[in-house]
Amino acid sequence: MKKFINAPENVVTEMLEGLLFAHSDLLKTADDNVKNIVRKDAPVKDKVAIISGGGSGHLPLFLGYIGEGMLDGVAVGEIFASPSSSQILSVTKQVDSGKGVLYLYGNYGGDVMNFDMAGEMAEMEGIQTAAVIGTDDVASMPKGEEDQRRGVAGLFYLYKMAAAKAEEGSSLEEVVRVTEHASRNVRTMGVALSPCTLPEVGKPTFNIEEGQMEIGMGIHGEPGYYKGKLQSADDITSTLIEEISEDLSLNQGDEVSVLINGLGATPLEELYIVCRKVKDIFLDREINIEKVYVGEYATSLEMAGLSISVLKLDDELKRLLHRPFNTPFHKQL
Amino acid sequence: MKKFINAPENVVTEMLEGLLFAHSDLLKTADDNVKNIVRKDAPVKDKVAIISGGGSGHLPLFLGYIGEGMLDGVAVGEIFASPSSSQILSVTKQVDSGKGVLYLYGNYGGDVMNFDMAGEMAEMEGIQTAAVIGTDDVASMPKGEEDQRRGVAGLFYLYKMAAAKAEEGSSLEEVVRVTEHASRNVRTMGVALSPCTLPEVGKPTFNIEEGQMEIGMGIHGEPGYYKGKLQSADDITSTLIEEISEDLSLNQGDEVSVLINGLGATPLEELYIVCRKVKDIFLDREINIEKVYVGEYATSLEMAGLSISVLKLDDELKRLLHRPFNTPFHKQL
Repeated sequence: MKKFINAPENVVTEMLEGLLFAHSDLLKTADDNVKNIVRKDAPVKDKVAIISGGGSGHLPLFLGYIGEGMLDGVAVGEIFASPSSSQILSVTKQVDSGKGVLYLYGNYGGDVMNFDMAGEMAEMEGIQTAAVIGTDDVASMPKGEEDQRRGVAGLFYLYKMAAAKAEEGSSLEEVVRVTEHASRNVRTMGVALSPCTLPEVGKPTFNIEEGQMEIGMGIHGEPGYYKGKLQSADDITSTLIEEISEDLSLNQGDEVSVLINGLGATPLEELYIVCRKVKDIFLDREINIEKVYVGEYATSLEMAGLSISVLKLDDELKRLLHRPFNTPFHKQL
Repeated sequence: MKKFINAPENVVTEMLEGLLFAHSDLLKTADDNVKNIVRKDAPVKDKVAIISGGGSGHLPLFLGYIGEGMLDGVAVGEIFASPSSSQILSVTKQVDSGKGVLYLYGNYGGDVMNFDMAGEMAEMEGIQTAAVIGTDDVASMPKGEEDQRRGVAGLFYLYKMAAAKAEEGSSLEEVVRVTEHASRNVRTMGVALSPCTLPEVGKPTFNIEEGQMEIGMGIHGEPGYYKGKLQSADDITSTLIEEISEDLSLNQGDEVSVLINGLGATPLEELYIVCRKVKDIFLDREINIEKVYVGEYATSLEMAGLSISVLKLDDELKRLLHRPFNTPFHKQL
């Protein structure tokens, strides 16, 4: 294992101390726990608050999306581990302005359990909550069982839509409606080339041999559905887009936004080679790409690989997509 | 070699096609060559233009810094190879508004030769040019021979200062003065954990064994000055900051900006662990960190490693530091 760390058990708290220092203009802690982080200006008056949370090791997910036009707060877990319900409750109390709180996170057992518990505790304290769960990873479950799928990089779009809607002054009910609508219209497919190593484990979580790739792998190394010879960037891109297009029933004339996300070790240069092919495929099918995001949006430590997310747009989602946001890692003017 | 590419010889042009598509709101080509890229709104009236250039494989360097508050244009080379003088000349013609053009790039033989030639050709066409060369890599040459050092991530600060000064309406002479002043006050130290592989070569450019690190390595794999056992993040950070502080003659009461840069494969989480230690060291020495940047600013394909750059501030540099910029990869509001 080659990592810039000190004691493995301190990775998350030390990382957060550095992060809170570097982004003190945007972030603050909700209480005396560095793992409970909220917007500097929380609670934001007269706005539905959006909270996410999950394990560490996926930066910019989850806490990197705190800021204007994005999340109000995040409960941070240890590497690949859920935050506790009491953390989530503490963040909830700090961000609620009286207009309710949306819990928006990926579909993993521990997260679902803890957000559910936190929601019940919050209701007992008079804070209205609702939950939308990201389930964009096409490869994780077959069609017909979409609600059982894992949440991966497509969460970015759910944050974006929920937050933009909330900033328009909408009610919790309206924010939930738009976020669920976005969730039904976003899909992600990923491919991995090499594994990552958890600091406390000290060795790779899985293995992909030289010359091989794995399609459909999850961001914690959950097995994919195809392991085989590494193909060209164009062929891999075609496969991923094909799966997404079919699952999302994309048709000629549709409008989409595309997120090409690096999983950690993959150079930006390669993501743009993939971007070029996505452009060519959709141009050929007369599907309009309204906006592209390229970079690291949801990583898995130093895993080499990438994912493509596609959000199918309608007029409302398109309007919300273009609203600005200002977070520590990504900004949109 | 595991990369998302097609034919190795097409990596740069395909990458640029993707990049120009994704960032068509900010970038355009200077001519019919996708390797010659300028600001969408070039030439910007009544402003000294800033041009950079160099080999590919370092994104966001170089072309990722084109945009308002940063560069006007970039001539892009093949992987780790200089752009040609005719490319640079073409970019020069497209960005010049009559107020002159600053060539601002890292100290590498091919780049120096080609920018010099382009400058001579530009002068013959009546365009005034000047050059400032980044030489921030402390490890590459000893003290006393600072002007022979390589340019690495510290270039970010030179771009920032030159461009901010130019946007204030300053003359070419004034922009050069500030940029040279910034150059004398910026230092970088890097450490690598694993190599990168050039697509056309197909195997790693060097080797660092398991459990080892190399301090002082350049961003093309130029050898460092210390190869030894991988130390803790805190110890490595202390070493890098010690070297920089001594070379820069940092004293109690000084003000600095710090850039903690990932070389490609290193997770953001680890960069923030390093950030925490930098904060503690400077706090202890009563050196004020005015602003921190953390992320990928100058990479070396999928090399694992990081660098720390420190810019010593005075009132003018501090004012320029805080001016906003808007580029494809990084934005400052």
